[in-house]
Amino acid sequence: MKIIETKSAPNPRRVRMFLAEKGIAVAYEEIDIMKGQHREAAFTKANPMQRVPVLVLDDGTAISETVAICRYFEETKPEPALFGTGALERATIEMWNRRMELGLLMHVAAAFRHTHPGGAALEVPQFKEFGEANKPRALEVMKVMDQQLAATKFIAGDTFSIADITGVIAVDFARVIKLRIPEELKHLARWHAEISARPSAKA
Amino acid sequence: MKIIETKSAPNPRRVRMFLAEKGIAVAYEEIDIMKGQHREAAFTKANPMQRVPVLVLDDGTAISETVAICRYFEETKPEPALFGTGALERATIEMWNRRMELGLLMHVAAAFRHTHPGGAALEVPQFKEFGEANKPRALEVMKVMDQQLAATKFIAGDTFSIADITGVIAVDFARVIKLRIPEELKHLARWHAEISARPSAKA
Repeated sequence: MKIIETKSAPNPRRVRMFLAEKGIAVAYEEIDIMKGQHREAAFTKANPMQRVPVLVLDDGTAISETVAICRYFEETKPEPALFGTGALERATIEMWNRRMELGLLMHVAAAFRHTHPGGAALEVPQFKEFGEANKPRALEVMKVMDQQLAATKFIAGDTFSIADITGVIAVDFARVIKLRIPEELKHLARWHAEISARPSAKA
Repeated sequence: MKIIETKSAPNPRRVRMFLAEKGIAVAYEEIDIMKGQHREAAFTKANPMQRVPVLVLDDGTAISETVAICRYFEETKPEPALFGTGALERATIEMWNRRMELGLLMHVAAAFRHTHPGGAALEVPQFKEFGEANKPRALEVMKVMDQQLAATKFIAGDTFSIADITGVIAVDFARVIKLRIPEELKHLARWHAEISARPSAKA
Protein backbone atom coordinates (compact mmCIF):
# COMPACT_ATOMS: atom_id res chain seq x y z
CA MET A 1 0.00 0.00 0.00
CA LYS A 2 1.27 3.48 -0.81
CA ILE A 3 0.06 7.05 -1.23
CA ILE A 4 1.20 9.07 -4.22
CA GLU A 5 1.28 12.74 -3.23
CA THR A 6 2.93 16.12 -3.51
CA LYS A 7 3.99 16.95 0.04
CA SER A 8 3.60 20.73 -0.22
CA ALA A 9 -0.02 20.65 -1.48
CA PRO A 10 -2.94 21.04 0.94
CA ASN A 11 -4.96 17.94 0.04
CA PRO A 12 -2.09 15.48 0.66
CA ARG A 13 -1.57 17.18 4.04
CA ARG A 14 -5.22 16.47 4.88
CA VAL A 15 -4.62 12.74 4.38
CA ARG A 16 -1.33 12.75 6.34
CA MET A 17 -2.93 14.57 9.28
CA PHE A 18 -5.91 12.21 9.21
CA LEU A 19 -3.63 9.15 9.26
CA ALA A 20 -1.51 10.62 12.06
CA GLU A 21 -4.66 11.06 14.16
CA LYS A 22 -5.59 7.45 13.39
CA GLY A 23 -2.08 6.18 14.18
CA ILE A 24 -1.72 4.62 10.72
CA ALA A 25 1.66 4.56 8.91
CA VAL A 26 1.70 4.38 5.10
CA ALA A 27 4.52 4.63 2.55
CA TYR A 28 4.53 7.82 0.46
CA GLU A 29 5.72 8.39 -3.09
CA GLU A 30 6.33 11.97 -4.24
CA ILE A 31 5.42 13.44 -7.63
CA ASP A 32 6.01 17.04 -8.66
CA ILE A 33 2.78 18.66 -9.83
CA MET A 34 4.65 21.90 -10.58
CA LYS A 35 6.49 19.89 -13.28
CA GLY A 36 3.21 18.43 -14.53
CA GLN A 37 3.87 14.85 -13.39
CA HIS A 38 0.17 14.50 -12.50
CA ARG A 39 -0.60 14.77 -16.22
CA GLU A 40 1.74 11.95 -17.24
CA ALA A 41 0.30 8.63 -18.43
CA ALA A 42 1.23 6.49 -15.42
CA PHE A 43 -0.42 8.85 -12.94
CA THR A 44 -3.42 9.52 -15.18
CA LYS A 45 -4.06 5.77 -15.25
CA ALA A 46 -4.24 5.78 -11.43
CA ASN A 47 -6.41 8.91 -11.39
CA PRO A 48 -7.98 10.16 -14.63
CA MET A 49 -8.87 13.38 -12.79
CA GLN A 50 -5.10 14.07 -12.49
CA ARG A 51 -5.13 15.18 -8.87
CA VAL A 52 -3.09 14.18 -5.83
CA PRO A 53 -3.22 12.32 -3.50
CA VAL A 54 -3.95 8.76 -4.66
CA LEU A 55 -4.00 5.69 -2.41
CA VAL A 56 -2.79 2.53 -4.17
CA LEU A 57 -3.76 -0.71 -2.43
CA ASP A 58 -1.59 -3.84 -2.53
CA ASP A 59 -3.67 -5.32 -5.37
CA GLY A 60 -3.19 -2.17 -7.44
CA THR A 61 -6.64 -0.69 -6.79
CA ALA A 62 -6.35 3.11 -6.85
CA ILE A 63 -8.52 5.33 -4.64
CA SER A 64 -8.37 9.06 -5.29
CA GLU A 65 -10.15 12.05 -3.75
CA THR A 66 -8.89 13.09 -0.33
CA VAL A 67 -12.09 12.37 1.56
CA ALA A 68 -12.53 8.98 -0.14
CA ILE A 69 -9.03 7.99 1.02
CA CYS A 70 -9.83 9.15 4.54
CA ARG A 71 -13.11 7.26 4.50
CA TYR A 72 -11.33 4.06 3.47
CA PHE A 73 -9.19 4.27 6.61
CA GLU A 74 -12.17 5.30 8.78
CA GLU A 75 -13.78 2.01 7.75
CA THR A 76 -10.69 -0.18 8.19
CA LYS A 77 -9.73 1.43 11.54
CA PRO A 78 -12.84 3.04 13.04
CA GLU A 79 -11.18 4.43 16.21
CA PRO A 80 -10.81 7.28 16.86
CA ALA A 81 -13.93 8.12 14.80
CA LEU A 82 -13.07 11.20 12.74
CA PHE A 83 -16.30 11.16 10.71
CA GLY A 84 -18.44 10.90 13.87
CA THR A 85 -20.83 8.29 15.22
CA GLY A 86 -24.62 8.18 14.85
CA ALA A 87 -26.81 9.89 12.26
CA LEU A 88 -26.84 13.44 13.61
CA GLU A 89 -23.11 13.65 14.40
CA ARG A 90 -22.10 12.09 11.10
CA ALA A 91 -24.33 14.49 9.19
CA THR A 92 -23.06 17.46 11.21
CA ILE A 93 -19.41 16.57 10.58
CA GLU A 94 -20.13 16.01 6.88
CA MET A 95 -21.78 19.45 6.77
CA TRP A 96 -18.88 21.23 8.44
CA ASN A 97 -16.24 19.34 6.50
CA ARG A 98 -17.94 20.46 3.31
CA ARG A 99 -18.18 24.05 4.52
CA MET A 100 -14.43 23.92 5.20
CA GLU A 101 -13.72 22.32 1.85
CA LEU A 102 -16.24 23.81 -0.60
CA GLY A 103 -16.53 27.08 1.30
CA LEU A 104 -13.04 27.88 2.55
CA LEU A 105 -10.43 25.64 0.91
CA MET A 106 -11.85 25.89 -2.60
CA HIS A 107 -12.02 29.70 -2.45
CA VAL A 108 -8.44 29.84 -1.17
CA ALA A 109 -7.29 27.35 -3.80
CA ALA A 110 -9.08 29.23 -6.59
CA ALA A 111 -7.47 32.49 -5.47
CA PHE A 112 -4.04 30.79 -5.40
CA ARG A 113 -4.43 29.02 -8.73
CA HIS A 114 -5.72 32.10 -10.56
CA THR A 115 -3.66 34.93 -9.00
CA HIS A 116 -0.36 33.47 -7.74
CA PRO A 117 2.72 32.96 -9.95
CA GLY A 118 2.93 29.47 -8.41
CA GLY A 119 -0.57 28.73 -9.67
CA ALA A 120 0.35 29.42 -13.29
CA ALA A 121 1.66 25.87 -13.77
CA LEU A 122 -1.62 24.43 -12.49
CA GLU A 123 -4.26 26.72 -13.92
CA VAL A 124 -4.02 27.50 -17.64
CA PRO A 125 -5.13 30.14 -18.32
CA GLN A 126 -5.32 32.05 -15.06
CA PHE A 127 -8.31 34.39 -14.63
CA LYS A 128 -6.88 36.94 -12.22
CA GLU A 129 -10.03 38.95 -11.55
CA PHE A 130 -11.98 35.79 -10.81
CA GLY A 131 -9.18 34.68 -8.49
CA GLU A 132 -9.25 37.98 -6.62
CA ALA A 133 -13.02 37.68 -6.11
CA ASN A 134 -12.45 34.47 -4.16
CA LYS A 135 -10.47 36.21 -1.41
CA PRO A 136 -13.36 38.07 0.28
CA ARG A 137 -15.43 34.88 0.05
CA ALA A 138 -12.79 32.93 1.94
CA LEU A 139 -12.85 35.66 4.58
CA GLU A 140 -16.64 35.33 4.89
CA VAL A 141 -16.23 31.63 5.72
CA MET A 142 -13.65 32.51 8.38
CA LYS A 143 -16.34 34.71 9.97
CA VAL A 144 -18.82 31.81 9.93
CA MET A 145 -16.16 29.62 11.59
CA ASP A 146 -15.57 32.25 14.27
CA GLN A 147 -19.29 32.41 15.08
CA GLN A 148 -19.42 28.62 15.39
CA LEU A 149 -16.26 28.44 17.49
CA ALA A 150 -17.65 31.01 19.94
CA ALA A 151 -19.98 28.19 21.04
CA THR A 152 -18.04 24.99 20.35
CA LYS A 153 -14.55 23.64 21.06
CA PHE A 154 -14.17 22.08 17.60
CA ILE A 155 -15.57 23.07 14.22
CA ALA A 156 -18.34 20.48 14.21
CA GLY A 157 -19.06 20.48 17.96
CA ASP A 158 -17.50 18.87 21.04
CA THR A 159 -15.45 16.29 19.16
CA PHE A 160 -12.31 16.59 17.03
CA SER A 161 -13.14 15.52 13.46
CA ILE A 162 -12.08 15.61 9.84
CA ALA A 163 -13.72 19.05 9.66
CA ASP A 164 -10.99 20.41 11.96
CA ILE A 165 -8.34 18.88 9.71
CA THR A 166 -9.77 20.43 6.56
CA GLY A 167 -10.34 23.73 8.34
CA VAL A 168 -6.87 24.18 9.83
CA ILE A 169 -5.19 23.22 6.55
CA ALA A 170 -7.39 25.64 4.61
CA VAL A 171 -6.55 28.45 7.06
CA ASP A 172 -2.83 27.64 6.80
CA PHE A 173 -2.98 27.46 3.00
CA ALA A 174 -4.60 30.91 2.96
CA ARG A 175 -1.16 32.34 3.73
CA VAL A 176 -0.25 31.83 0.06
CA ILE A 177 -2.89 34.41 -0.84
CA LYS A 178 -1.83 36.60 2.11
CA LEU A 179 -5.06 35.99 3.97
CA ARG A 180 -4.44 35.64 7.72
CA ILE A 181 -6.96 35.29 10.53
CA PRO A 182 -8.21 38.83 11.21
CA GLU A 183 -7.47 40.02 14.74
CA GLU A 184 -11.16 40.35 15.65
CA LEU A 185 -11.86 36.65 14.97
CA LYS A 186 -10.64 35.59 18.41
CA HIS A 187 -12.49 32.27 18.56
CA LEU A 188 -11.03 31.22 15.22
CA ALA A 189 -7.55 32.16 16.45
CA ARG A 190 -8.06 30.17 19.69
CA TRP A 191 -9.15 27.10 17.72
CA HIS A 192 -6.35 27.49 15.17
CA ALA A 193 -3.74 27.55 17.95
CA GLU A 194 -5.24 24.47 19.60
CA ILE A 195 -5.45 22.40 16.41
CA SER A 196 -1.98 23.51 15.28
CA ALA A 197 -0.54 22.23 18.58
CA ARG A 198 -1.64 18.64 17.88
CA PRO A 199 1.27 16.44 16.76
CA SER A 200 -0.73 15.44 13.66
CA ALA A 201 -0.58 19.04 12.38
CA LYS A 202 3.13 18.49 11.68
CA ALA A 203 2.58 15.27 9.70
CA MET B 1 -39.15 17.64 9.73
CA LYS B 2 -38.95 19.63 6.50
CA ILE B 3 -36.58 20.45 3.68
CA ILE B 4 -36.21 24.05 2.51
CA GLU B 5 -35.32 24.05 -1.17
CA THR B 6 -35.65 25.65 -4.59
CA LYS B 7 -37.20 22.95 -6.74
CA SER B 8 -35.55 23.96 -10.03
CA ALA B 9 -31.96 23.90 -8.66
CA PRO B 10 -29.75 20.80 -9.08
CA ASN B 11 -28.71 20.22 -5.46
CA PRO B 12 -32.27 20.02 -4.11
CA ARG B 13 -33.02 17.52 -6.90
CA ARG B 14 -30.15 15.35 -5.64
CA VAL B 15 -31.81 15.12 -2.21
CA ARG B 16 -35.28 14.43 -3.67
CA MET B 17 -33.94 11.64 -5.89
CA PHE B 18 -31.99 10.16 -2.98
CA LEU B 19 -35.08 10.15 -0.76
CA ALA B 20 -37.23 8.64 -3.54
CA GLU B 21 -34.71 5.78 -3.86
CA LYS B 22 -34.89 5.32 -0.07
CA GLY B 23 -38.68 5.47 -0.02
CA ILE B 24 -38.69 8.38 2.43
CA ALA B 25 -41.33 11.13 2.26
CA VAL B 26 -40.50 14.58 3.66
CA ALA B 27 -42.36 17.91 3.56
CA TYR B 28 -40.81 20.58 1.33
CA GLU B 29 -40.84 24.35 1.68
CA GLU B 30 -39.94 26.45 -1.37
CA ILE B 31 -37.81 29.59 -1.39
CA ASP B 32 -36.89 31.58 -4.49
CA ILE B 33 -33.12 31.96 -4.81
CA MET B 34 -33.57 34.04 -7.97
CA LYS B 35 -35.25 36.63 -5.71
CA GLY B 36 -32.45 36.33 -3.15
CA GLN B 37 -34.51 34.67 -0.44
CA HIS B 38 -31.47 32.54 0.51
CA ARG B 39 -29.77 35.76 1.65
CA GLU B 40 -32.61 36.80 3.99
CA ALA B 41 -32.09 36.63 7.76
CA ALA B 42 -34.38 33.67 8.49
CA PHE B 43 -32.70 31.42 5.95
CA THR B 44 -29.19 32.63 6.81
CA LYS B 45 -29.84 31.61 10.40
CA ALA B 46 -30.60 28.06 9.18
CA ASN B 47 -27.59 28.04 6.85
CA PRO B 48 -24.94 30.78 7.16
CA MET B 49 -23.52 29.57 3.82
CA GLN B 50 -26.80 30.72 2.18
CA ARG B 51 -27.29 27.66 0.01
CA VAL B 52 -30.24 25.32 -0.59
CA PRO B 53 -31.29 22.70 0.39
CA VAL B 54 -31.51 22.67 4.20
CA LEU B 55 -33.03 19.88 6.28
CA VAL B 56 -34.76 21.13 9.44
CA LEU B 57 -35.38 18.45 12.07
CA ASP B 58 -38.36 18.51 14.43
CA ASP B 59 -36.26 20.06 17.22
CA GLY B 60 -35.16 22.88 14.90
CA THR B 61 -31.66 21.50 14.17
CA ALA B 62 -30.67 22.55 10.65
CA ILE B 63 -28.50 20.33 8.44
CA SER B 64 -27.25 21.85 5.20
CA GLU B 65 -25.01 20.57 2.40
CA THR B 66 -26.66 18.10 0.03
CA VAL B 67 -24.43 15.14 0.86
CA ALA B 68 -24.73 15.75 4.61
CA ILE B 69 -28.53 15.62 4.29
CA CYS B 70 -28.29 12.40 2.28
CA ARG B 71 -25.90 10.91 4.82
CA TYR B 72 -28.35 11.68 7.65
CA PHE B 73 -30.99 9.59 5.91
CA GLU B 74 -28.48 6.84 4.98
CA GLU B 75 -27.83 6.48 8.73
CA THR B 76 -31.47 6.58 9.82
CA LYS B 77 -32.64 4.22 7.02
CA PRO B 78 -29.63 2.20 5.82
CA GLU B 79 -31.46 0.19 3.13
CA PRO B 80 -31.00 0.39 0.21
CA ALA B 81 -27.40 1.43 0.89
CA LEU B 82 -26.66 4.33 -1.47
CA PHE B 83 -23.23 5.13 0.03
CA GLY B 84 -22.13 1.47 -0.22
CA THR B 85 -21.15 -1.19 2.30
CA GLY B 86 -17.63 -2.13 3.42
CA ALA B 87 -14.44 -0.10 3.25
CA LEU B 88 -13.57 -0.49 -0.44
CA GLU B 89 -17.09 0.07 -1.79
CA ARG B 90 -17.73 3.05 0.47
CA ALA B 91 -14.42 4.64 -0.56
CA THR B 92 -15.09 3.91 -4.24
CA ILE B 93 -18.56 5.47 -4.11
CA GLU B 94 -17.18 8.49 -2.22
CA MET B 95 -14.52 8.86 -4.93
CA TRP B 96 -16.98 8.72 -7.80
CA ASN B 97 -19.55 10.91 -6.09
CA ARG B 98 -16.83 13.54 -5.66
CA ARG B 99 -15.74 13.20 -9.28
CA MET B 100 -19.36 13.78 -10.29
CA GLU B 101 -19.72 16.71 -7.91
CA LEU B 102 -16.34 18.47 -7.87
CA GLY B 103 -15.46 17.42 -11.39
CA LEU B 104 -18.68 17.61 -13.39
CA LEU B 105 -21.39 19.44 -11.44
CA MET B 106 -19.16 22.24 -10.20
CA HIS B 107 -17.79 22.96 -13.67
CA VAL B 108 -21.32 23.00 -15.10
CA ALA B 109 -22.54 25.20 -12.24
CA ALA B 110 -19.60 27.61 -12.62
CA ALA B 111 -20.29 27.86 -16.35
CA PHE B 112 -23.98 28.53 -15.64
CA ARG B 113 -23.39 31.03 -12.87
CA HIS B 114 -20.75 33.01 -14.77
CA THR B 115 -22.09 32.94 -18.35
CA HIS B 116 -25.88 32.52 -18.24
CA PRO B 117 -28.30 35.45 -17.79
CA GLY B 118 -30.04 33.28 -15.15
CA GLY B 119 -26.77 33.10 -13.23
CA ALA B 120 -26.50 36.88 -12.91
CA ALA B 121 -28.74 36.90 -9.83
CA LEU B 122 -26.55 34.30 -8.12
CA GLU B 123 -23.03 35.29 -9.10
CA VAL B 124 -22.09 38.96 -8.67
CA PRO B 125 -20.04 39.83 -10.59
CA GLN B 126 -20.04 37.25 -13.36
CA PHE B 127 -16.63 36.42 -14.91
CA LYS B 128 -17.71 35.29 -18.36
CA GLU B 129 -14.32 34.10 -19.65
CA PHE B 130 -13.76 32.04 -16.52
CA GLY B 131 -17.25 30.60 -16.96
CA GLU B 132 -16.56 29.63 -20.57
CA ALA B 133 -13.34 27.86 -19.54
CA ASN B 134 -15.40 25.51 -17.37
CA LYS B 135 -17.31 24.05 -20.33
CA PRO B 136 -14.47 21.99 -21.88
CA ARG B 137 -13.58 20.77 -18.39
CA ALA B 138 -17.08 19.46 -17.87
CA LEU B 139 -16.78 17.67 -21.21
CA GLU B 140 -13.52 16.04 -20.09
CA VAL B 141 -15.30 14.55 -17.07
CA MET B 142 -18.02 13.16 -19.35
CA LYS B 143 -15.23 11.34 -21.24
CA VAL B 144 -13.91 9.88 -17.97
CA MET B 145 -17.46 8.73 -17.16
CA ASP B 146 -17.79 7.10 -20.58
CA GLN B 147 -14.55 5.14 -20.07
CA GLN B 148 -15.74 3.93 -16.69
CA LEU B 149 -19.21 3.02 -17.98
CA ALA B 150 -17.68 0.91 -20.76
CA ALA B 151 -16.76 -1.53 -17.98
CA THR B 152 -19.42 -1.00 -15.30
CA LYS B 153 -23.21 -0.80 -15.15
CA PHE B 154 -23.25 2.10 -12.71
CA ILE B 155 -20.80 4.96 -12.17
CA ALA B 156 -19.13 3.45 -9.12
CA GLY B 157 -19.39 -0.22 -10.15
CA ASP B 158 -22.11 -2.90 -10.06
CA THR B 159 -24.36 -1.10 -7.61
CA PHE B 160 -26.59 1.94 -7.97
CA SER B 161 -25.32 4.68 -5.63
CA ILE B 162 -25.38 8.36 -4.78
CA ALA B 163 -22.71 8.79 -7.46
CA ASP B 164 -25.30 7.91 -10.13
CA ILE B 165 -27.68 10.48 -8.64
CA THR B 166 -25.09 13.27 -8.68
CA GLY B 167 -23.91 12.21 -12.13
CA VAL B 168 -27.29 12.12 -13.87
CA ILE B 169 -28.34 15.44 -12.35
CA ALA B 170 -25.06 17.08 -13.39
CA VAL B 171 -25.50 15.77 -16.96
CA ASP B 172 -29.09 17.05 -17.04
CA PHE B 173 -28.10 20.42 -15.60
CA ALA B 174 -25.46 20.75 -18.35
CA ARG B 175 -28.34 21.51 -20.74
CA VAL B 176 -28.43 25.05 -19.31
CA ILE B 177 -24.95 25.61 -20.72
CA LYS B 178 -25.93 23.79 -23.94
CA LEU B 179 -23.61 20.87 -23.21
CA ARG B 180 -25.21 17.57 -24.26
CA ILE B 181 -23.72 14.08 -24.24
CA PRO B 182 -21.58 13.90 -27.40
CA GLU B 183 -22.73 11.19 -29.81
CA GLU B 184 -19.48 9.20 -29.50
CA LEU B 185 -19.88 8.72 -25.73
CA LYS B 186 -22.20 5.74 -26.15
CA HIS B 187 -21.64 4.21 -22.73
CA LEU B 188 -22.49 7.49 -21.05
CA ALA B 189 -25.65 7.72 -23.17
CA ARG B 190 -26.64 4.13 -22.27
CA TRP B 191 -26.18 4.84 -18.56
CA HIS B 192 -27.98 8.19 -18.77
CA ALA B 193 -31.02 6.53 -20.37
CA GLU B 194 -31.09 3.79 -17.71
CA ILE B 195 -30.79 6.14 -14.75
CA SER B 196 -33.30 8.59 -16.23
CA ALA B 197 -35.85 5.76 -16.50
CA ARG B 198 -35.85 5.19 -12.72
CA PRO B 199 -38.98 6.65 -11.05
CA SER B 200 -36.72 8.58 -8.65
CA ALA B 201 -35.36 10.64 -11.55
CA LYS B 202 -38.75 12.40 -11.73
CA ALA B 203 -38.81 13.25 -8.00
